Amino acid sequence: MAKKLANTHVESLLKAFEIHQQKNRAMSYVTNVASFDAQTVAPKNKDAVNERAEAMGYFALEDFKHNNSENYDKLLTDLEAAYDDLSPEMQRIVYLERKNIEKLKKIDPKDYQDYAILLSQAQVAWENAKAANDFAAYAPFLERILTYTRKFTQLTKTVNGPLYNQLLDDYEEGSTIEKLDQFFASLKDRIVPLLKKIQQSKVNIRNDFMSRSFPKHEQLAYAKDLLTFLGYDLDRGALSESVHPFTSEISPNDVRVTTRIYENNFVSNIYSTAHEGGHGIYEQNLDKKVKGTLLGHGAAMSIHESQSRFYENVISRSKTFTHVVFPDLKKKFPNQFKDVTEKEFYQAINEVQTSFIRVEADELTYSLHIMVRYELEKQLIAGTLKVNDLPQAWNQLYTEYLGITPKTNAEGCLQDVHWSGGAFGYFPSYALGNAISIQLLKTMEKDLSLEETINRKNLTPIREWFAEKIYRFGKFYPPFVLLKKVTKEDLNPTYYCDYLETKFSEIYDL
Amino acid sequence: MAKKLANTHVESLLKAFEIHQQKNRAMSYVTNVASFDAQTVAPKNKDAVNERAEAMGYFALEDFKHNNSENYDKLLTDLEAAYDDLSPEMQRIVYLERKNIEKLKKIDPKDYQDYAILLSQAQVAWENAKAANDFAAYAPFLERILTYTRKFTQLTKTVNGPLYNQLLDDYEEGSTIEKLDQFFASLKDRIVPLLKKIQQSKVNIRNDFMSRSFPKHEQLAYAKDLLTFLGYDLDRGALSESVHPFTSEISPNDVRVTTRIYENNFVSNIYSTAHEGGHGIYEQNLDKKVKGTLLGHGAAMSIHESQSRFYENVISRSKTFTHVVFPDLKKKFPNQFKDVTEKEFYQAINEVQTSFIRVEADELTYSLHIMVRYELEKQLIAGTLKVNDLPQAWNQLYTEYLGITPKTNAEGCLQDVHWSGGAFGYFPSYALGNAISIQLLKTMEKDLSLEETINRKNLTPIREWFAEKIYRFGKFYPPFVLLKKVTKEDLNPTYYCDYLETKFSEIYDL
Repeated sequence: MAKKLANTHVESLLKAFEIHQQKNRAMSYVTNVASFDAQTVAPKNKDAVNERAEAMGYFALEDFKHNNSENYDKLLTDLEAAYDDLSPEMQRIVYLERKNIEKLKKIDPKDYQDYAILLSQAQVAWENAKAANDFAAYAPFLERILTYTRKFTQLTKTVNGPLYNQLLDDYEEGSTIEKLDQFFASLKDRIVPLLKKIQQSKVNIRNDFMSRSFPKHEQLAYAKDLLTFLGYDLDRGALSESVHPFTSEISPNDVRVTTRIYENNFVSNIYSTAHEGGHGIYEQNLDKKVKGTLLGHGAAMSIHESQSRFYENVISRSKTFTHVVFPDLKKKFPNQFKDVTEKEFYQAINEVQTSFIRVEADELTYSLHIMVRYELEKQLIAGTLKVNDLPQAWNQLYTEYLGITPKTNAEGCLQDVHWSGGAFGYFPSYALGNAISIQLLKTMEKDLSLEETINRKNLTPIREWFAEKIYRFGKFYPPFVLLKKVTKEDLNPTYYCDYLETKFSEIYDL
Repeated sequence: MAKKLANTHVESLLKAFEIHQQKNRAMSYVTNVASFDAQTVAPKNKDAVNERAEAMGYFALEDFKHNNSENYDKLLTDLEAAYDDLSPEMQRIVYLERKNIEKLKKIDPKDYQDYAILLSQAQVAWENAKAANDFAAYAPFLERILTYTRKFTQLTKTVNGPLYNQLLDDYEEGSTIEKLDQFFASLKDRIVPLLKKIQQSKVNIRNDFMSRSFPKHEQLAYAKDLLTFLGYDLDRGALSESVHPFTSEISPNDVRVTTRIYENNFVSNIYSTAHEGGHGIYEQNLDKKVKGTLLGHGAAMSIHESQSRFYENVISRSKTFTHVVFPDLKKKFPNQFKDVTEKEFYQAINEVQTSFIRVEADELTYSLHIMVRYELEKQLIAGTLKVNDLPQAWNQLYTEYLGITPKTNAEGCLQDVHWSGGAFGYFPSYALGNAISIQLLKTMEKDLSLEETINRKNLTPIREWFAEKIYRFGKFYPPFVLLKKVTKEDLNPTYYCDYLETKFSEIYDL
């Protein structure tokens, strides 16, 4: 009888929770659609942008109020009291929601709103400063964002050590400066010398055909075929064009990807598509236990990026993949590839070229770009680096890690949008994702051969392996717990460094 | 001093009104975007459709509650008390909002929600019944929608006469059965005999080239050029593809249009584009006094349709327009038009072909399709026609008006979505729009020559004339008041009938 009463009590709490989530789902549905729309078809005139900003601002505040209410706090407290009667998934949800509400409770709504306004102004200030190569015009915004970030982090801090630890933990539960310093040191020790050797290599990589012209609509059709081949389900998503490629989880059965298409740079489209395809496949293969709930997303940015990088680099930039798709590419684009061999194609898509721009970086140098940002934001948050000294510090690190020095701030410290959006602590996830993708590959290869699977032209076993090991859990496990569960060891960048060394030694005949 | 106090009072009321509208604007922004998205890129799988329906259902109810609240009622009462101190635009807004809230107040929220659910079910039931040609499966839904429509109309009725008068007035303020009976009788008297003469004409219109193949991406590029030529501003909108073309007012500076593209029916794209372009141009040219307010939309469906029809038929199907654009079309599509003359093209785009499907009807027979629906829905609402007798009554009227008899209900009474969406009283606006477009043309030609303007390849004077006479007012005037203000007379279908007779007599050598 008591058990039955307890059940009824839990059921009514769960029902109240579901009603609360209905509003969250509705708001999240429309704001996701509006954001996808803004980055694809929406007109960009100033008035339309302001009209959208007004609507989005309304929902941001509404969301804050809805999830930071006394009612919801009370409901979470009741659910915590009934913790043992909850499903493991619900227990995790309550834990995450408590973490979130405790954070929101400490923030003054006025501050929250002012910060939101600051961010939308900073976005425009950053765009203008980048276009005009005018760091001084942007510096006051970065300064104010840092002030808010420090203030909010100080107020909501729950992990030990410096403030930056908290920001790292916000993105990757369990991440600390200590761990990341070690991680990046290992990468630096192996990638920097490898890069120097490559720069001295006598191997000449032919890349003249990389800028040949490929009609837009044919590229778009190719991207759709590629997505399907990789295992992305177009019936539960869509492919659109955008300036910056991204993946959007509109709802559980509507996970969309975008690509960027340049007539004279066809590989940009191929690898954007494969990258976003990896993100999309992750979100499309959650278990129904978590799908549509607050756990119904990727575990964390690092694990997500491990998947996009896996589909982009480990699969699509591999020799086997080139061998499998190149004949078809040659058939579809006979004029553009008539004088190109499979080997030349493979080398061209893997050419190492140090550049100033992170998003255009090759597989080898990508992590070096991240290291620069990690070092600098760590110091910015600690206050040991002043905003005014950022340009110089940035250029010094590029010289040290990549051997090149930016000539302008536009191609230097102004190139990324992240800090203008208040995203400090986010960059490391990109590099973690690279390393994790290879650590997962090593584990996967105990069960199946990647090469043979690609050669059979059916990638389903790869998707199914990831679904079983990673995707289905959604956010149920923190990222490093999940990584250890799957690979039986902690984060180990050795695999990644070995992989890079083997791959590029062969290409550059080292 | 008293004046000053009154001003402060009015200002605070207007401020409260503005805050109320902020939420409306935010909700309207996101639901418009979501609806545009649903009809263009969104995936169509059942789960995604349900996820969207859940979100939209939430906002529909939220909207009902927001605009049917005691607070808002009180605010309107206060504004009514300060009526003389309000701007003319605000006076009209308060009048329309009062009308709306009085209606909402009389409807039980439970009924409202049940009806919304019924409509979403009916939409699916209609699609299935149409596909399976199974009227019996759909009839119970239509029956229930009629019951709700009668109930709601009875409760909220403010105009005299039969229930259907209220439905007509809801779409076209001032419209009655008496007026429309007269209007349709005039059309019928002239169009039916004209059609019979055309059917006996010996003129042979060549149409073999109309089904030649035009690549999709080239059609899309052509549609964009056409929109710009007509005067639609792509920077404050967008062109997308959809199954059913439509215009969407996302926000004041973001008015989008869509088109339908068939590889083997290129004119479908051209005239869909011109039609929606007309709607779009209207919405893009509102005066800033009404833009972004509750008056910031077209006056009514009839006036709106007069514009889409004007750009589609009066301009784009004219001889002058053909003369102006055909050389360019021939240059852009040399293979498809190599053996086609300008005259053949003009005749082909104006060929009269009786068909069962309203949306494919030519300029002449279109209004006959509307008359069938008008007669039938008038009787359905009055209860003098039973749902089960609808198929037979439909077929009888097609035989009488168009001289053809549908062989299935799919091409008969199941072809339109309107009744499944509860839109009774909406169809007449299409025919009114046709007649109004020509009545406006007659007035316009006192100020400028349409032929000369088109011949100069600059349509700006046309848009500016409409902006001055029609667009800028938004919903400030009821449709028939506006029509009289511009043309100095009441609705007069004679112009329209004369226009049809002149145009088609020439084409068919009558």
